[in-house]
Amino acid sequence: MEILNGKAVAKNLNERTAKRVATLKERGITPGIAVIYVGDDPASAIYTRNKDKMALRLGMNSQLMHLPATATQEEVMAVLQEYNQDPMIHGILIQSPLPKHLDEHALVQAIRPDKDVDGFHSMNVGRLYNNEPGNYPVSCTPRGIMTMLDHYGIELAGKRVVIMGRSILVGRPLQALLINRDATVTMVHRHTKDPEAFTRQADILIVGIGQPQAVTSELVKPGAIVIDVGIHRTEKGKLIGDVDYDSVKEVAGMLTPVPGGVGPMTIASLMAQTVDLAEWSIRDDQ
Amino acid sequence: MEILNGKAVAKNLNERTAKRVATLKERGITPGIAVIYVGDDPASAIYTRNKDKMALRLGMNSQLMHLPATATQEEVMAVLQEYNQDPMIHGILIQSPLPKHLDEHALVQAIRPDKDVDGFHSMNVGRLYNNEPGNYPVSCTPRGIMTMLDHYGIELAGKRVVIMGRSILVGRPLQALLINRDATVTMVHRHTKDPEAFTRQADILIVGIGQPQAVTSELVKPGAIVIDVGIHRTEKGKLIGDVDYDSVKEVAGMLTPVPGGVGPMTIASLMAQTVDLAEWSIRDDQ
Repeated sequence: MEILNGKAVAKNLNERTAKRVATLKERGITPGIAVIYVGDDPASAIYTRNKDKMALRLGMNSQLMHLPATATQEEVMAVLQEYNQDPMIHGILIQSPLPKHLDEHALVQAIRPDKDVDGFHSMNVGRLYNNEPGNYPVSCTPRGIMTMLDHYGIELAGKRVVIMGRSILVGRPLQALLINRDATVTMVHRHTKDPEAFTRQADILIVGIGQPQAVTSELVKPGAIVIDVGIHRTEKGKLIGDVDYDSVKEVAGMLTPVPGGVGPMTIASLMAQTVDLAEWSIRDDQ
Repeated sequence: MEILNGKAVAKNLNERTAKRVATLKERGITPGIAVIYVGDDPASAIYTRNKDKMALRLGMNSQLMHLPATATQEEVMAVLQEYNQDPMIHGILIQSPLPKHLDEHALVQAIRPDKDVDGFHSMNVGRLYNNEPGNYPVSCTPRGIMTMLDHYGIELAGKRVVIMGRSILVGRPLQALLINRDATVTMVHRHTKDPEAFTRQADILIVGIGQPQAVTSELVKPGAIVIDVGIHRTEKGKLIGDVDYDSVKEVAGMLTPVPGGVGPMTIASLMAQTVDLAEWSIRDDQ
């Protein structure tokens, strides 16, 4: 069983991103990311801080706009519109979850599509789903998974891929990316009857269901590549995934650990995508 | 074996559409569709004429803008922009195929998303794919197939659906519509290894591969519901589908004929969607 070392692949990707940032700086452009964080969700506090630190480490500009939990839709929208206009900012993201009185969907749709570093805007989702030509951002967790699969030279065309979970952030965009790469993809979800019948046939099994250690070896085809998108903290503070690692490692051919698998790839992909947006903004200007 | 009678369902749908048109007219609004047709493709000539006739028959306004094959991108774009601004026009479509010197993708993306009666604009595709709330148009052939499945009371949640073909017009949007209705969907295509292994498991098999009579009974699970999206004309002038009807009718539980299956549903759906756009335009004004 080979471990898919997301931490190592992310390090590699971050090194390339740092070089691209340095090249852009020589041309007088510093890629800039803006994170809008509303309220006091403790997980969000950690995530936004990590994004900020990583951006700075790679030589980028990072703006963290922290608004109180009482901020109104109009206040958040006004901040967003400033970033939309700010030529120093190439990527904007709204840290989820937002306080419940805010309309997250409307805010995401108000991000300029060419600054939509999370790839959540309907315009960018549609481009991805139709496999349109040209440059556009895509959701970072799926992007990171694709980079990892490519790093390990995993052939996708003609492979049977099963995605557990049909979320907007992971399952759906990943499906589009994989279909565009000629895989045969089935998305299974809570309404699927006999999901094992699908998962046991999968050459590549991607799990993003938000249930700790729910996927055990009986669901996995011997030799399959298993990607674990989940992350949960146990009462003892240990990080675990949606996959029961100790069980699945006995049958899988390749497996991502948690931590050190998909997680580091997501943030590295966010950084790489910010640089993409900065590069594309120059080309668009010419 | 039950025939899924698209012609009858379309008739039913058109009657409802005509009533909705009449109701809108009482409020002073006549739904209007504009078709932009460039060049002299003979199939397009028939399709555009049929759309025009059907729109008029249902009481709607129909504008057919026929441009010569030599029309430039700028000329077509100018016509499009006029329709974008025209309050009498609620739905705009560009008849495909266009002469090769024209950039069809750019033209489709220039249609106002709220007048995009074909549902091809990336913005509307993204909304569909993310199952977003609110009103937006979707591709008419998939919409017609869903209406037909619903008409016959076919349960979708938990069903195994296999879609043969991953086109932007049919396979992809249909997949999104079916996932949003809780089906378990696999899209098979020319890179899929052993496609029979998938199709033979399908409770619902939808075929849009553009190959005459390619799907025979061996590919079909006994009792399955089979939807044939293909349409081809034989040398003798007979219309046939992607499904070998005489072979598949021996095993399928339900089957769409060609002609009289998906085809009439597509144009009826286009008409219904034009009325949707007209209705939504009023609500947006209020």
